[in-house]
Amino acid sequence: MSNNVRAYAATSTTSPLGPYTLARRAPRNDDVVIDILYCGVCHSDLHFARNDWGWTSYPVVPGHEIVGRVIAVGAGVSKFKVGDAVGVGCLVDSCGHCVACEQGQEQHCKEGPTFTYGGVDRIDGTPTHGGYSEKVVVKQDFVVRVPDNLDLKGAAPLLCAGITTWSPLKDANIGPGKKVAVVGLGGLGHMALKLANALGAEVTLFTRSPGKEADARRLGAHHVVLSTDPEQMAAVAGQFDLIVDTVPYVHDLNPYIPTLTFKGKLTLVGYLGPLEPALNTMPMVVSGQSLSGSLIGGIPATQEMLDFCGVHNISSDIEVIKMEEINDAYERLLKADVKYRFVIDMASLKQG
Amino acid sequence: MSNNVRAYAATSTTSPLGPYTLARRAPRNDDVVIDILYCGVCHSDLHFARNDWGWTSYPVVPGHEIVGRVIAVGAGVSKFKVGDAVGVGCLVDSCGHCVACEQGQEQHCKEGPTFTYGGVDRIDGTPTHGGYSEKVVVKQDFVVRVPDNLDLKGAAPLLCAGITTWSPLKDANIGPGKKVAVVGLGGLGHMALKLANALGAEVTLFTRSPGKEADARRLGAHHVVLSTDPEQMAAVAGQFDLIVDTVPYVHDLNPYIPTLTFKGKLTLVGYLGPLEPALNTMPMVVSGQSLSGSLIGGIPATQEMLDFCGVHNISSDIEVIKMEEINDAYERLLKADVKYRFVIDMASLKQG
Ligand SMILES: [Zn+2]
Ligand SMILES: [Zn+2]
Ligand SMILES: [Zn+2]
Ligand SMILES: [Zn+2]
Repeated sequence: MSNNVRAYAATSTTSPLGPYTLARRAPRNDDVVIDILYCGVCHSDLHFARNDWGWTSYPVVPGHEIVGRVIAVGAGVSKFKVGDAVGVGCLVDSCGHCVACEQGQEQHCKEGPTFTYGGVDRIDGTPTHGGYSEKVVVKQDFVVRVPDNLDLKGAAPLLCAGITTWSPLKDANIGPGKKVAVVGLGGLGHMALKLANALGAEVTLFTRSPGKEADARRLGAHHVVLSTDPEQMAAVAGQFDLIVDTVPYVHDLNPYIPTLTFKGKLTLVGYLGPLEPALNTMPMVVSGQSLSGSLIGGIPATQEMLDFCGVHNISSDIEVIKMEEINDAYERLLKADVKYRFVIDMASLKQG
Repeated sequence: MSNNVRAYAATSTTSPLGPYTLARRAPRNDDVVIDILYCGVCHSDLHFARNDWGWTSYPVVPGHEIVGRVIAVGAGVSKFKVGDAVGVGCLVDSCGHCVACEQGQEQHCKEGPTFTYGGVDRIDGTPTHGGYSEKVVVKQDFVVRVPDNLDLKGAAPLLCAGITTWSPLKDANIGPGKKVAVVGLGGLGHMALKLANALGAEVTLFTRSPGKEADARRLGAHHVVLSTDPEQMAAVAGQFDLIVDTVPYVHDLNPYIPTLTFKGKLTLVGYLGPLEPALNTMPMVVSGQSLSGSLIGGIPATQEMLDFCGVHNISSDIEVIKMEEINDAYERLLKADVKYRFVIDMASLKQG
């Protein structure tokens, strides 16, 4: 098989993504070769392509919500066989022996995990490239199984949006009898509603836009609270065991803290940066609450989430696009104009 | 027995504390009457006496680190008998039936706990008054047993400073193999060092003053890190499972977050107010860390902490004062000029 595959890459901070030919490595002993069928479009793809975080090297092939079928395996691969439906998320390798890796928290690898794109391969030192491409070659330990009953298109966003919202729910032991609120209804928020509902929690959406009620209820919310209405906020004081905050830009957390019960937790999965206006610790100390961050999830949790989604028949609400529509999709993503995740049909790249 | 007892009270925002006669209630069926031997001096006493939080009604008799002996019990009291060494902390009652009370987290009572001073008795509606007095009458469920081997003077601060630092350590399952750092070496900080050390953790003190090393090591720190030295801070990056931050004034938390390990937690027990400079969530999200607040602890945890202190012979490092020295002690407290807790010898009040 040829090592050259078609892909879409950004070649500079300002250039749009365009066709690019990528050399995938010949499979190693423990590698799985995956024919990519679908790839979700994550905010991180856009940020990374445009060097918003300052550490992008070009060219970059984004994409870390990868779903496809195994087309070849290395001699030492025991976990997968040709034809299996599989997924690859944000990670393709880690040290394997640190305290984080030993706990299956590869995203927190003490030596730094290898990200699916924008990373550096631990063996040959070449840059890693993501799922906006025909094929990918990944170490079997970082490949997960997609349950047979799931629609493969809708399953792609589970690999990042799904696991990112699953982790805080599981870390807080969310299940029947627990109350969960979700802030923001986008790619992450809509997955948080579905997962929290399926876990058996009583689910509330906090939103600033009155028009989202019907959609929120369809996605799993039992209640919708307008966060701009002080009366509605006061009515939910002291209620929530967990708030999953998916909003990707700076916003005031202070109104949400008092809606947590004692020892409740607000977990940020969207916003990275300084908290302005200033977070007031008074209610947090008085009620023993916490604010935490959460980053995707490890490989065991990703498989657990996929298996759970299989059992509960959960996938993402998506809009399928062609590879050549990616630049328009990025513009729409910036305006939050998508319900609720773009997924690239890779057939469009292969036929191109 | 007469219901009138000698006490020290503040009668206005600006007046110093002075002698005051207080009518204690006749013991109810489940009440314990305690002859107060010692009472610790907590920062909250000062803040409350001066109405720093804006909700003080005068006169107020502060004091919630109370140690004494039982001198009478109501007919229905089964837990204590005359002569027992007992303690009373920050709480004297709660609703008893909410989800917090059912979990022994009476400090988070959903109906609001009754604080030892500045509160309102749930039965007769009278104001509660604290330990700067000869005697106190408290419902048996809010009285704890002081182990026989503990020095009663040194045990008094355990009732607030002890339980306040015990709670975050226990909530984070601190024990052998865990690394704990303490920020600030005052009444709370010195207890945090002693308790974390006795729990078997590897203990570090963060301090801004180079002169505290010898004292910190004597109190239980294995390491001392100058938080003003970027090299020393970098050397402890990613280390701590828990940081107990006891500093009572606003300070920058950002330098401490990166010293937490992945999923590590910084718990504030001292500072209540807006976080300035702004807390940056970037490292918290990337490493899955959290910032929490913690408020004293419930009655079961307070008894557990006292029993642990009995086994490990832990008490507070104190400076004993007379009741009439309280106003000078407050001034010294504001300058952090005490190693490490003032304790009032109530014999001074009784003889006065
Ligand atoms: Zn992503
Ligand atoms: Zn590792
Ligand atoms: Zn106190
Ligand atoms: Zn209660």
